[in-house]
Amino acid sequence: MNYREKSLEKHAEWKGKIETVCRVPVDSREALSVAYTPGVAEPCMAIHADIEKSFELTRRWNTVPVITDGTAVLGLGDIGPEAGMPVMEGKCALFKAYGGVDAYPLCIKSKNTEEIIKTVKLLSGSFGGVNLEDISAPRCFEIETRLKEELDIPVFHDDQHGTAIVMTAALINALKLAGKKKEDIKVVINGAGAAGIAIAKFLLGYGVKCLTMCDLKGIICEGGEWLNPAQREIASLTNRKLLKGKLADAMKGADVFIGVSGPNCVTKDMVKSMADKPILFTCANPVPEIDPEDAKEAGAFIVGTGSSQHHNQINNVLVFPGLFRGALDVRARTVNREMMVAAAYGIAGCVKKDELSREYILPYAYDKSAHDCVAKAVAEAAVKSGVSKLK
Amino acid sequence: MNYREKSLEKHAEWKGKIETVCRVPVDSREALSVAYTPGVAEPCMAIHADIEKSFELTRRWNTVPVITDGTAVLGLGDIGPEAGMPVMEGKCALFKAYGGVDAYPLCIKSKNTEEIIKTVKLLSGSFGGVNLEDISAPRCFEIETRLKEELDIPVFHDDQHGTAIVMTAALINALKLAGKKKEDIKVVINGAGAAGIAIAKFLLGYGVKCLTMCDLKGIICEGGEWLNPAQREIASLTNRKLLKGKLADAMKGADVFIGVSGPNCVTKDMVKSMADKPILFTCANPVPEIDPEDAKEAGAFIVGTGSSQHHNQINNVLVFPGLFRGALDVRARTVNREMMVAAAYGIAGCVKKDELSREYILPYAYDKSAHDCVAKAVAEAAVKSGVSKLK
Repeated sequence: MNYREKSLEKHAEWKGKIETVCRVPVDSREALSVAYTPGVAEPCMAIHADIEKSFELTRRWNTVPVITDGTAVLGLGDIGPEAGMPVMEGKCALFKAYGGVDAYPLCIKSKNTEEIIKTVKLLSGSFGGVNLEDISAPRCFEIETRLKEELDIPVFHDDQHGTAIVMTAALINALKLAGKKKEDIKVVINGAGAAGIAIAKFLLGYGVKCLTMCDLKGIICEGGEWLNPAQREIASLTNRKLLKGKLADAMKGADVFIGVSGPNCVTKDMVKSMADKPILFTCANPVPEIDPEDAKEAGAFIVGTGSSQHHNQINNVLVFPGLFRGALDVRARTVNREMMVAAAYGIAGCVKKDELSREYILPYAYDKSAHDCVAKAVAEAAVKSGVSKLK
Repeated sequence: MNYREKSLEKHAEWKGKIETVCRVPVDSREALSVAYTPGVAEPCMAIHADIEKSFELTRRWNTVPVITDGTAVLGLGDIGPEAGMPVMEGKCALFKAYGGVDAYPLCIKSKNTEEIIKTVKLLSGSFGGVNLEDISAPRCFEIETRLKEELDIPVFHDDQHGTAIVMTAALINALKLAGKKKEDIKVVINGAGAAGIAIAKFLLGYGVKCLTMCDLKGIICEGGEWLNPAQREIASLTNRKLLKGKLADAMKGADVFIGVSGPNCVTKDMVKSMADKPILFTCANPVPEIDPEDAKEAGAFIVGTGSSQHHNQINNVLVFPGLFRGALDVRARTVNREMMVAAAYGIAGCVKKDELSREYILPYAYDKSAHDCVAKAVAEAAVKSGVSKLK
């Protein structure tokens, strides 16, 4: 039985991967009077006097909804909000298991940017943070940007930044092994959707100088007429040699290939055309841009994929539980660049020097200590960058 | 230390009365591949093909948000969505402890009827039912009516119907003790807000013939110029003798007084003016319409209050956990009158004949068997009335 069949069977057996539990005694008149009426009026009035107290007297300090419209679920596309639920529930399960965060799935039946923004804003008083998930580009950019501007709790679009952070963590460790420096490498990113553009921006901020993006239509170059606004912006920051052509052209001499695109778009010949010790992160799901075995045969020095079936899974599961744990712990009012960079270094640092190898550049997603490490790094960065609300 | 002080202290200690837990293994590569990617794509696609499967493959079958705008929290009034959270969380804790329902609080930062309706509708694909809570009248009527029309999952405004159901349960047993029949009694309801109007409608449906409502301005009578639309509707169904005057006038000769109003508005003289064996359900919170001891001194036969500090607590905690448990168990597409009447009889029936006394007319809210009994009665009524979606 393959994983998909087994998963369907287990989901039918589980009937839900998360549940809510009651944390307080309610088994006597006395207990009810304290947890509920009449006693509960007092914490209500304390919050009425000072809304910040909602982070002390309710679960708000630890709650994060996983919000989607179901338009870009895994590699499955626009399958609708209800159908996205198994992924969102899975995310909630991981939020708790790895980060101790109380998360619950909220699937919004609308693809309208303003409606989604409004819905999240109207509900934001119930949460400590907001995790956006599987919302298709370019709407996800506007939704995240606006919510970050208009809310004073951490807002994070995992598909963009979670992917960018873990990809950067992988790159940090891969470069150590290849003996290359971030300033000197030539990076090609294939796929100019939400994840690809977020990775590009993040790598530029991290210190990569030479970066070229491709999409189905080829190399993204300033002035390209088919570019959407997000791509136009990134075109002005990347490919400064104004190279035109196809993916194969971009890959010639590249040190690093990052794929967040589709299956089988990279050939062995393309890998062979890359620089010495080529690094390939082929994260198309479920079928990668090139089979890892083929890539290695063609000379790949390090290969990472999005799948747990191969070595070096580049999985944003490594990011979001620890990132929110850290942000919530210090009451961060946002998720800023410093916190995200800290998360990337935090993940990379989890692999001990003597364990680091071409087949082990990232900690395992199910390694709880890695998430603790990310949380600590993110919390410190939040405090240092002045976005903690703790006094 | 009184309950309010103790409650504040305990809430600060608890930091949340509910939490989310992970129900599935995620501690290995294999486990992650089944609960999350890549396996999870299969349950997603199964729901994409048939949305009904979301009730089988996710927790949706058991989830109910407790939704408020914070405008009518307890007797505290419009204290805002965040300040309502301790009550909503308490409700969620009771939902789980007594009904096994996974509930979570969603506080909406809007008082606009259309915005609240839209928000709930947009999120409805994530839930098995919807519990509306502490939304002020008259907006709560429109919100509940519209959501019931437009959604095919159970929608229930607890302040209206929960109160009506438990009040009817109390009346059923009180009348047994007083040896009176519902068709013969004269009932006065003081307080023509959401709860009062819902109780009036419910009692009329249950079989009470003579019913008069009062508000701060006095007896509600057809043609009254100060009546809002909901009150105008109820005025046409009650007080058919077109009595005018004050509460004291209405109470003369009444068998039953039901208060969902404010503190100390009933005097001993008013109780003395009632019929033989007067029954008083004085549910203003936290201070009742008349002190129970005063009521008894003035000749009250049975007194019930909203407080757990006295005998006969008339508490809608007895309703919502079992009602939703029953509705969810048979995938009811709505909460109809038959289900609500079944709940009232279910609650009344929990008090055994030999235990029934003037000081014990309702089961204790913390008696789990009472909730099981309500669930069973509601599920049966849903099936019998044809609203179950189970095949």
